[in-house]
This record gives sequence, structure tokens and C-alpha cells, in this order.
Amino acid sequence: MTDTRHTNIGIRLGDLVERFGGQLVGDPGITVSAIAPLDSAGPEHISFLSNSKLRALAAQSGAASLILSPLDDPSVAATYEGARIVTTNPYAYFARAAQYFVSLSETPKAPGIDPSAVVSPQATVDPTAHVGPHVTVESGAVIGAHAVIDAGCFVGRDARIGADTHFFANVTFHAGCSIGARGIVHSGAVIGTDGFGFAVEAGVYIKIPQTGRVVIGDDVDIGANTCIDRGALADTVIEDGVKLDNQIQIGHNCHIGAHTAMAGCVGVAGSAKIGKHCTFGGAAMVLGHLEIADNVHISSGSMVSRSVLEPGQYTGFYPLAKNAEWERSAAIVRNLASMREKIRTLEKTIKTLSEQQ
Amino acid sequence: MTDTRHTNIGIRLGDLVERFGGQLVGDPGITVSAIAPLDSAGPEHISFLSNSKLRALAAQSGAASLILSPLDDPSVAATYEGARIVTTNPYAYFARAAQYFVSLSETPKAPGIDPSAVVSPQATVDPTAHVGPHVTVESGAVIGAHAVIDAGCFVGRDARIGADTHFFANVTFHAGCSIGARGIVHSGAVIGTDGFGFAVEAGVYIKIPQTGRVVIGDDVDIGANTCIDRGALADTVIEDGVKLDNQIQIGHNCHIGAHTAMAGCVGVAGSAKIGKHCTFGGAAMVLGHLEIADNVHISSGSMVSRSVLEPGQYTGFYPLAKNAEWERSAAIVRNLASMREKIRTLEKTIKTLSEQQ
Amino acid sequence: MTDTRHTNIGIRLGDLVERFGGQLVGDPGITVSAIAPLDSAGPEHISFLSNSKLRALAAQSGAASLILSPLDDPSVAATYEGARIVTTNPYAYFARAAQYFVSLSETPKAPGIDPSAVVSPQATVDPTAHVGPHVTVESGAVIGAHAVIDAGCFVGRDARIGADTHFFANVTFHAGCSIGARGIVHSGAVIGTDGFGFAVEAGVYIKIPQTGRVVIGDDVDIGANTCIDRGALADTVIEDGVKLDNQIQIGHNCHIGAHTAMAGCVGVAGSAKIGKHCTFGGAAMVLGHLEIADNVHISSGSMVSRSVLEPGQYTGFYPLAKNAEWERSAAIVRNLASMREKIRTLEKTIKTLSEQQ
Repeated sequence: MTDTRHTNIGIRLGDLVERFGGQLVGDPGITVSAIAPLDSAGPEHISFLSNSKLRALAAQSGAASLILSPLDDPSVAATYEGARIVTTNPYAYFARAAQYFVSLSETPKAPGIDPSAVVSPQATVDPTAHVGPHVTVESGAVIGAHAVIDAGCFVGRDARIGADTHFFANVTFHAGCSIGARGIVHSGAVIGTDGFGFAVEAGVYIKIPQTGRVVIGDDVDIGANTCIDRGALADTVIEDGVKLDNQIQIGHNCHIGAHTAMAGCVGVAGSAKIGKHCTFGGAAMVLGHLEIADNVHISSGSMVSRSVLEPGQYTGFYPLAKNAEWERSAAIVRNLASMREKIRTLEKTIKTLSEQQ
Repeated sequence: MTDTRHTNIGIRLGDLVERFGGQLVGDPGITVSAIAPLDSAGPEHISFLSNSKLRALAAQSGAASLILSPLDDPSVAATYEGARIVTTNPYAYFARAAQYFVSLSETPKAPGIDPSAVVSPQATVDPTAHVGPHVTVESGAVIGAHAVIDAGCFVGRDARIGADTHFFANVTFHAGCSIGARGIVHSGAVIGTDGFGFAVEAGVYIKIPQTGRVVIGDDVDIGANTCIDRGALADTVIEDGVKLDNQIQIGHNCHIGAHTAMAGCVGVAGSAKIGKHCTFGGAAMVLGHLEIADNVHISSGSMVSRSVLEPGQYTGFYPLAKNAEWERSAAIVRNLASMREKIRTLEKTIKTLSEQQ
Repeated sequence: MTDTRHTNIGIRLGDLVERFGGQLVGDPGITVSAIAPLDSAGPEHISFLSNSKLRALAAQSGAASLILSPLDDPSVAATYEGARIVTTNPYAYFARAAQYFVSLSETPKAPGIDPSAVVSPQATVDPTAHVGPHVTVESGAVIGAHAVIDAGCFVGRDARIGADTHFFANVTFHAGCSIGARGIVHSGAVIGTDGFGFAVEAGVYIKIPQTGRVVIGDDVDIGANTCIDRGALADTVIEDGVKLDNQIQIGHNCHIGAHTAMAGCVGVAGSAKIGKHCTFGGAAMVLGHLEIADNVHISSGSMVSRSVLEPGQYTGFYPLAKNAEWERSAAIVRNLASMREKIRTLEKTIKTLSEQQ
């Protein structure tokens, strides 16, 4: 845990703009020690304004410095007396600055292999990588430079882990799978388990061996207890920059396009092909063998039961109501066909009545 | 596994009422060795009646003793000849008695640290605590009196685990998080993983460091493979007495009020504020930044997409039907706007017709 | 990872039909080294036709041999010049042949116990079983012949694991539970965690000890991060041949009939009794204490809120739509009672009008 609000670090504003750009209005020698929200920031803090609705709050902030957009700057600057870093995307600037603060305050894991780890002599672990207690690394696995494999992780035969990738404690990464550079895999995630494939004979399931892999690009984050199945014959593919939250299930042979993000509890059945820059709200579900175009956004709790080939926002969940009201509406939903029939009858009757007049 | 039906323990009824109260009608020297259901209990058993509909069954039970309410007692006592413990909440009494039976029959885990565990010299483990095989405890962590940390658990830097708290095998408890006394964390749970927070710049996600913690009160149960994310800047808070079932996802910065219970597969998105004494049925989902008042009850499978500020039972799921019927109703649901239009047209036509008469 | 497409194995067609039956039309001495899809198979491959729509593709396949049905054989044989294995269920035949290819190319895990494992002297591990690094096996546990327990698994007190059963890395299998022969339990699965059972007293939950077990039959597959709770007093039972995908939650005291299959993210609440040969699509949910007959098929994303006693396909999820359309339909769904009222009023008015004519 690193609390960016209470650090012993001092960062010069001049250092920040040198690293991350932006136009500094104020003294580059001013030093800040942490990032804080607009309303609680004090003279040791830098804060940020990413929502124009909070301009008034920003204008009165006690922060030593503010990160804000050219659009918000004139209004805020009228009363705010601290230094300002003006940049087109203050929220992204904040993210980078926060990463920088954390990097300065945290102790990096020491390179080397914990004596309790069981690492095959046929595995290749970069000398700058960290392998924690109780880790197992099987033969042929390759762990890249500055990678961190925390306690209790399992890295299967011939798996490949890219440079600067971080496995938190108790990750399972199966044989033959690969992940690129700067990835993050959170605790309890299981990558490369067998896909769910069976032939049926006389009502009995016969397992189809799952001999594909999971191939993951660079800058991919995988949440806690998320599962990604290996392909049946071909591979399951997760492209660069994909962000998966916790408790997600990705079936075998799925292909997820670059920079697509999924919130917690999403499920994607096998062989779905999902485009780039899509978003999926929590607990959204996608049936197998569907295609989702680029820039499709699925709302939380929605079931995608057909391909979605046009960009846009899509939704499908039953609206919440007091239980008694729901019981009424659900009973009618069950009988909508009879309601439609009644309307048709009415239409006919009225037609007859009208003609008779 | 402890089967309370077949033990070698003998407990005097007098001992039970001394510990747990209730009015004993019968001989305090009667000894029972286990708890059994009404219909299978024999002379060595104690049973309980918590549902008045089962009075007739209780009246004929072969149990040596019954736990029952003052309301049910006269009717049962008319024919039942065993001893009776009369108490206002027989089900709660049963729960406590069952805990007592289990405590007598199970072997407590021995205090001490398994030689295979990797415990930092900078961690503090109470001498009465049990730390099992392959556990990792990082520096600054504190493990309280009589706590049990089973095999394969990970306890991160500066984490705090209260007295009498039990982590089952393979729990991951991340740096800086804390849990109070008498907690239970089941296998595969992941506490304190990073929340899902990103800034977006030119379609690419930039991680926002998650520097808050997870702070958990006393008497909290957390189910198997459940995840609770650490806060972004502030903390994620789980108050006293909360009970979470398996496969639950709690997003960053959530606040869950005391004595709220959630069944399996529930998902709560980030920054939701949930009141006390709420219940959530299985697979209920709560969107982010919502507020749920005290004493709100959400049915299984329901999506909470707006704040719920009034106590009561709320529901929202599509009713199940034979597939052909569902296809018909779902097609109409898709076109409800056109049905509404038809009704409006009918209303107008009829108005005209009526006026013409 | 075993890629069946690139092996050094040569299998004679005569060997295949001797093992798995089927009628061979062609030279039994032909040797194939792998299985490949119809369109990419070459002279070293065997392929299969399980979907009659692909007859034309099969007829032109470059595979050395095809597995196909008597129905498809005449049409394909007209142009296809390779050897044919004619069998009633080509997909099942493919599954078995693929398993055979994999069994020949993979290196079996060596019998024995890894030195880093912590195995109780009171446990019984068959000398042909494999126990991997960092495994914990508690006293009284029994591990059968040729069982494989991969790295980081936990096997609790008195648990029983049948012959040829395979636990992938990081499985948790709690005390007293049992699984039969030829089972597969994938990584992160948690079997035998406490069920979610509480009595309530003055708004506070009191835990009811869960003293039943999980009893699992032969040939059962359990997916990654799937949880099965132990029973409260009686046992949770999973019959032979059940196939559970990833991220599934099975509550305490459930009974799942033989050869039932559940896709990812399914949830089954406590004490549900599910028949044989059922299927559950992804994220289907079953409430507690329900009964589901044999041969019931529940579609993905459907909530089963009442018992289903008749075989057939059942569905219940809100259809996906563009967000604006969904908002319109959902608003009407909320007010269906008023729509029904309007229709009733119309019916009455029309009746009056008709009578007046």
C-alpha cells in the first residue's frame, strides 16, 4: 500500500512538466509531496480539475498547484493563486503524475529468486527479474527483464512473460501461454486453462483436448480471479492494451481487439471476436461465435446474443422496481402475446365500427 | 469435515442452557451427543423447531430434547415427551449450539509457524497464531492472537489480521489492508487488489495508481474466490458483521454497511455506498457511485442501475419461459414502442368515434 | 501446451480403427501424425467431417484420411481420394483420436512427491501418483493411483482423490470431500468451502456450522475458479460425468445429476436439485431449493426462479437493443400495468360503442 497523500517525497513542478509536458504558469521551483483531491488538498499537494463542473471548487482549492485544461484555466485562474499546469487532458496527466509519485515512494522488489521457489533448471529467468516465495516455474519458461513474479505463482512449461510484467501473488499461468511487456496480472487469475469443449456420445461428454494457447499482447491488465481459456486448436488472443477487471471469464478461441476494456464479472463465451476500443459494463455477457465491431459499448448486465456490427451503445437488462411492481410487470411480460392479440382484436373491431358509420 | 451427527461428545442440557440461556423443561442431566433434523433425530440427539408448520413433526420427534419457541411449545408439549429448551429464537439457538458441538469435536490448529512458511522477520505473528505450510507473510504485517492462516495464503506488507480470524487455504490479502477480529476469509478470496481505474488518452488506457486500502471490521465473513478491490485514493470499507458469499466482486471505494449480506456472484461496481442490514440475492449487480439505503433487499439476478433510497424489496429480472414463448415475448418487448403507438392511435380513433355518436 | 498439429508421432490408421472402431476404407498402413481442420489438412494429417454442410470442403480436403459418417460418406467419396474412417459419430471419434494423439506426445508427470510439498505422514499417497511443488496434503487424505496434484494445491484432512484424477495448479480441496476416478479440477477451483448459512438474531448473523461434505463422482470436470460449497448437514453431491466450466458457484446441499453440463459463470443457490443430462448456458442462475427435471436446458443469462419439471429449452433474458431503444422499451416495461389498464378501458369503450350501434 502506498498512500500518495502522505509521502516524504518532494517533486518540483519543473520536473513534472519536463517529464509529462503541459504549460506551467508559476514557479518551477515549487515542490509538492503528493496528489490530493481538490477539496482536501493543502500547500504540500498538487490537485487536478478534470470535470468543468468542479471549476468553483478548483478556484478555491488550497493546493499548491493545479493540473487543468486550457478551457477551464481562465475561469479558475481568476481567483486561484497557486501554480497551474495547463494541459489538454488533465486526468491523463494526473494518472501519469500519480504513477511517478508511486514509483518514487515504493521499494522495488529485489532481483533474484527466493530460495523457497522451485524453478526448473531448464527455465530462463532474467537476472533482473524477481521471483517470490513458493513460486513454481516449469521447464522452458522464460521470464523477462524486470518482471516481478510474486509469491505462490505458477508459471507452466514454455510459458513466456515479457519485460516489466508483474504477476501479483497466486497467479496461475499455464504451459505455452505468453504475455508481452508491461502487463499486470492480478492475484488468483488463471490464464490458459482448458477450454470447455466436448463431443457428446449417447448423452456422455468426451473431452476434446485443448491444444491452443493464450497469446497476450503488451500493456495488458488482467484482474483478480479472471480466467482466460486456451484455444482448442487455434489460440485465444488478447491484443495490446486490453484491460480486464476481476472475475471475468474469456472462453477458448476468443479474440479481443486492442484497447478494449471489460468491467468486473463479464463473461465471453468461446470463439467470440471482439473489436478494438470496445467497452463492456460489469456482468455483461457475450454468447459464443459472435462478432462485435470496433467501438461497440455494451452496458452493464446486458446479454449480447447476436453479433453487433455497428458502433454504439447497446443495453439489455430488466429495469429494477419495487418487488410488487416487478411482479405485476413481469406477469404482463409473460403474456405480452395475449396483449398484442387484444390490440389486434380492438383494431379490427374499430375498423368495423368506423366503416359502419 | 466435522459431522455433528456422529460424535463422541456428551453435552448436558444443563450445560447448554447455562451457556446459551433458554428455559429448560426437563432433566438438566440429560446428555446429547449431536444435533439432528426433527425427522431423523434419536435418543442421543437434540433437535430444533424453527418453523411452526413443522409442529406435528416435532411433536412426534424421537429426539432426546427439542429447542423451540414459546409459541410452539404448548402444542408440541401436548404429545412430545422429551426435554424442551424454550427460547425466543430457536434457529439462532441451534446455530450457537451447533458451533459449540463443532468446537468440542474439532482439533484446533496448533500455534506456531510451519517450517515451510516464509515469514518476514519484520512481521509480527502472535505466538498463539497458526501459520500453515507455504504461507508468505511480508514485512510489517501483524497477525493477531489465535488467528489461523492456512496453507498457501499470502499476507502482504503492513497488512493486519485481527484476533481469532481464520484464513482458509490460498487466500491473498494484499499490502496495507486490515481485517478485524473473528473474521473468516475463504479459499481463493483476493482482498486488496488494485481497483479498475484508468484515464483515457487517444483511446489508450493509462493506469491510475490505486493507493487506498481495504479496511474490514469485526465478524466479517468473505466467501471463496470473492474479490474486494483497494480504494483509489480513499479506502474501501466493509463494516462489522458483513457476510459475503462466494464469487463476489466489490469495486474500489465501495462502502458496505454493517450486517449487510450478499449471496454468491453479486457484483458491486466502484464507489457504491451500501447501507446496513441490506441483503442481495445471488448475482445481483450494483452500478458504480450509487447509494443504497439501510434495509434494502435486492432480489437475485437484479440489476441496480439507480440509487435506492427507500427500504424494501426490489426486483428486476426477465421471467423464465419456454424458449418459444420467450422468443415471442422478447420480440414484443423489443417493439413495445410500436405497441404503445397503436394504443394511442386506437384511443384517438375511439375518441373520434365516440364524439361522432 | 501440446499442439496436435505438429508432432513427431506417426499413427497407423489400422491402429486407430483397432482402438476406436469405425470402418476403414483404404490402406491401414497409412500413417498420420496429427489432426487438422478440413481446410488446412495436408498429407500428414487426419481430419473429420461432423457437419454435413461442410461436405464440399471435405470432398476437396488434402488430408491423408477423413473421419466421417455413413450419411456423408457416399457424397464425399465421389471425389475424395484419401482413406476414410466411417463411423456414426465422427465428432466423438475425433475427440477420442485427439486424446490419443495428445497422450502419445505429452510427457507424463513423474510419480512421486516433490521435495517442497508438505505431506502429512498420516496421508496416503499412491506411489504412482504425482504431487507437485508447494502442495499441502493433510492427515488422512488419500490420493489414488496415477493421480496428478500439480503445484500449489491444497488437499485437506481426510479428503479422497480417485485414480487418474488431475488437479491443475492451485486447486483447494477441503477436508472430508471426495472425487472419483478420471476427474479434472482446474486451477483456482475451491471445493468444499463452507456453505452460506446463518441464523439471524436482532439483525446480526450467527454462523451455522457447515458439517456436510462435497461428494463428487467419476469423470467429473470442474473449471477454473469454480466453487462448490460443502453441505450444511447433508452432503453436496455431484454425480458422474458432470462437466462444470469456469467461475461457477454451486451452493451447499445442491445435487447435480449425472452428465449435466454448465457453461461459465453459472450460479446455483443452495439445496437446488438438478436432474441428469441438463445443460445450462453461461451465466444462467438457479435459485435455492428448486427442482430441475432431467433433460432441461436453460439458456445463457436466464434466471431460474421456479422449479422446472418438464424437459425442454427455457429462456429468460432482456433482449439487447441500441441504448436509446432499450430506454424506450424499458420505460414501457416499467409501466406495463398502465398499458394493460388502457387496453381494458378501450375494450370497455368499444363494447359500449358497439352496443349503442
